[in-house]
Amino acid sequence: MKVTKFGGSSLATGQQFDRVINILNQDSDRQVVVTSAPGRAAEFPMKVTDLLIRYGKEVIEDRDSSKTVQDLKKRYQAIADYFALPTEQFATILDQIDDLPKHQYRSYTYLRATFAAHGEYLNAQLLALILQEKGQKAVFVDPKQLHMVTDANFPTLDEDATYQELGNFEIEEGTRYIFPGFFGYNDRGEMVTFSRGGSDITGAILARGLMADVYENFTDVDAIYAVNPRLVKNPVAIHNMSYSEMRELSYAGFAVFHDEAIIPAIQGQVPINVKNTNDPDAPGTWIGPAEQNKPERRVTGIAASDSFCALYLHRYLLNKEVGFTLKILQILARHGVPYEHMPSGIDDLTIIFNKKSLNKEQIEQIQMDIEREIAPDTMAWHEDFAIVMIVGQGMKNRVGAFTEIVTPLRDAGISLQMVNQGASEISIMLGVEVDDVDNAVKAIYYNLFDDEQK
Amino acid sequence: MKVTKFGGSSLATGQQFDRVINILNQDSDRQVVVTSAPGRAAEFPMKVTDLLIRYGKEVIEDRDSSKTVQDLKKRYQAIADYFALPTEQFATILDQIDDLPKHQYRSYTYLRATFAAHGEYLNAQLLALILQEKGQKAVFVDPKQLHMVTDANFPTLDEDATYQELGNFEIEEGTRYIFPGFFGYNDRGEMVTFSRGGSDITGAILARGLMADVYENFTDVDAIYAVNPRLVKNPVAIHNMSYSEMRELSYAGFAVFHDEAIIPAIQGQVPINVKNTNDPDAPGTWIGPAEQNKPERRVTGIAASDSFCALYLHRYLLNKEVGFTLKILQILARHGVPYEHMPSGIDDLTIIFNKKSLNKEQIEQIQMDIEREIAPDTMAWHEDFAIVMIVGQGMKNRVGAFTEIVTPLRDAGISLQMVNQGASEISIMLGVEVDDVDNAVKAIYYNLFDDEQK
Repeated sequence: MKVTKFGGSSLATGQQFDRVINILNQDSDRQVVVTSAPGRAAEFPMKVTDLLIRYGKEVIEDRDSSKTVQDLKKRYQAIADYFALPTEQFATILDQIDDLPKHQYRSYTYLRATFAAHGEYLNAQLLALILQEKGQKAVFVDPKQLHMVTDANFPTLDEDATYQELGNFEIEEGTRYIFPGFFGYNDRGEMVTFSRGGSDITGAILARGLMADVYENFTDVDAIYAVNPRLVKNPVAIHNMSYSEMRELSYAGFAVFHDEAIIPAIQGQVPINVKNTNDPDAPGTWIGPAEQNKPERRVTGIAASDSFCALYLHRYLLNKEVGFTLKILQILARHGVPYEHMPSGIDDLTIIFNKKSLNKEQIEQIQMDIEREIAPDTMAWHEDFAIVMIVGQGMKNRVGAFTEIVTPLRDAGISLQMVNQGASEISIMLGVEVDDVDNAVKAIYYNLFDDEQK
Repeated sequence: MKVTKFGGSSLATGQQFDRVINILNQDSDRQVVVTSAPGRAAEFPMKVTDLLIRYGKEVIEDRDSSKTVQDLKKRYQAIADYFALPTEQFATILDQIDDLPKHQYRSYTYLRATFAAHGEYLNAQLLALILQEKGQKAVFVDPKQLHMVTDANFPTLDEDATYQELGNFEIEEGTRYIFPGFFGYNDRGEMVTFSRGGSDITGAILARGLMADVYENFTDVDAIYAVNPRLVKNPVAIHNMSYSEMRELSYAGFAVFHDEAIIPAIQGQVPINVKNTNDPDAPGTWIGPAEQNKPERRVTGIAASDSFCALYLHRYLLNKEVGFTLKILQILARHGVPYEHMPSGIDDLTIIFNKKSLNKEQIEQIQMDIEREIAPDTMAWHEDFAIVMIVGQGMKNRVGAFTEIVTPLRDAGISLQMVNQGASEISIMLGVEVDDVDNAVKAIYYNLFDDEQK
């Protein structure tokens, strides 16, 4: 049995739905299907999830939402019309869009989550309806019965409950089960969403819990590339890589696959196959255990992200004091702010954050608390901090990997703000100026992959 | 006014004392003198401080100490004889050696400290006696009136009390004030020692507190060298460097100057001049503010130390969890163990310790606590971890510094365990196998300093 997840662009229009149905029909093992919300398409410049977020905002602010409701209905209507779905069947979808503001919500947080989740929720129902209309055995599965999330600040999987339910979930031969991705329910029955792009996570949880043979992830590219195709023309495709390599790459900006979605796949040792909905016969990229996914080359991929910021602290004898970093971490924990990395010198400490994980007010409060409780000699805030991550199982214990990476940077005149290697054996993390990040990635890529490029 | 400190080898024999007295007589500004304990000499293979530690141990274990007492007396006697010091004056020194076991000690900790401190204590008294005998105005100053230390686990300076006392300390023209280095007194009047080599710290505190124009540090080398002379023949001498450069170098093994001794000099902005007792006219090495001590070359020095150990932890989504590192630091704080560095990947964390700061039992307890409270997927202890530190104000914002450092390592076939750059702008820290550390230092040195070497 395969769990097969389709991304937003794969489910954006009736034509794309048709491709998805063909892909499903090609392989009777594709029994568990996970849907995203309809993404962008030529005639639809806005993603359904963004429309739903706007819809929620209009409701909260008590503004007119009729235009947004109309836009939303148009998206699902276009798909239904493509398959000539009978109006009486499809009406329930449209009703749910109208009914969204009528429910009771404990707080705006739950309102927002419920609105946002409906992109996937309705798309899964629609796909099930279309398959049924085509005479296939297809069941829409509401994740309500599967728990899926605890209700923390950051929604996390309720592992025990979820995997117990999934262990009892019966899959009948010849039937397809259509799950909406991206969200689950908490103990009070409220919808809670994973982070954006979280349909990948739903798919991985199902793949693990239902003990799938493969977790197929259909998107709109032929493979995961060794470098961002926006930066390099016709980049080298990665045919296979290890779970860890994928995690490191997706952490630093490889958006093809959600970094949190790897964990359930690792836990269940389910191989992942990233494939293209528009070219389903292409082999795509395989992601699995390191021993079965030997690297094709020294470096598997180069990722980069400028979504970081950093706080620099200096105080003499900083590293002689047992409690110094402890105090800083207590301040961060008090404000609920996670940090990414913390390289330290003997009198210096840099704390690197993901911009998404803290707001302006938190930045100010953290700095005030550090000033008061720690009184550093110097404290400086860096708004922008870019990270380049060079990832490769093949670099493990390999002498000289570093030279191949830093020499092209020197030749390109790019200065290194930070180097962090050693915690992970399969990656090297570089900090560069935001203005340099694209050039840094290109310089490293062309030095490492040049032979194959020509 | 200059504060002039002499190291153990500079005060090991009568002949060396003679050199010291000549150095003092050359410059009437040398009014504040700090003594070490007599160090090793051709005819004396053991340092006086080591003899005193043995003496303390014998007393604690109730063993015969007469041989040790004899050895100790011989050391001071040899110096007194060189200057034909009258016996009745010198007798007080010998009596103090005999009397050490007769005092009351609150605990063995204080016994050990008092015994160890007497190397400097007696040497300062002896130098004052010899100068007086030569008809000079010289006063021995017992740091009792100057406080100097709080009585914590790690003796630290009682800044407020000490600098207040030093501010009131009157220096009369034509008089020399001889202070013993290495120790101070706590509020109960008990002797407490700084860490080994702590006479440098005493000198720096006096230089700051008495607002000296220069802090002269006399030792047995012509200058501080860019690399350990044990590894490289005739290495390049450093003529001047910044306080920060010295701190980073002494942290990673440059033993010429104690790393904690820089702080008071920085606070008082007192320039430090490291000079050779055996060649006092050589300019030596100047250490001062960065703006007045511009680098002579890109890299100022290369230090290395194999006195580290490391704990490696792996757990998925480690860096998404706000409290993960906090918990680890709480465990370390609970066991009173400071850490040196903590490079992190997205699922990995390496904690680097100084071997001196934790014992076997603490290592086991920390690992047990981490296992119980954090349950990492993987935990591994590395007994030996060597660090190479490349230091240079000239590397700041300089493109390509890295290439010059890692290329010779690749050519020498040396693999990098860790790279940490970015917290400090003036240094790059590399982790290498202990077996590789000497070769790594040599390879980098010859690549960077080769032109000057030939």
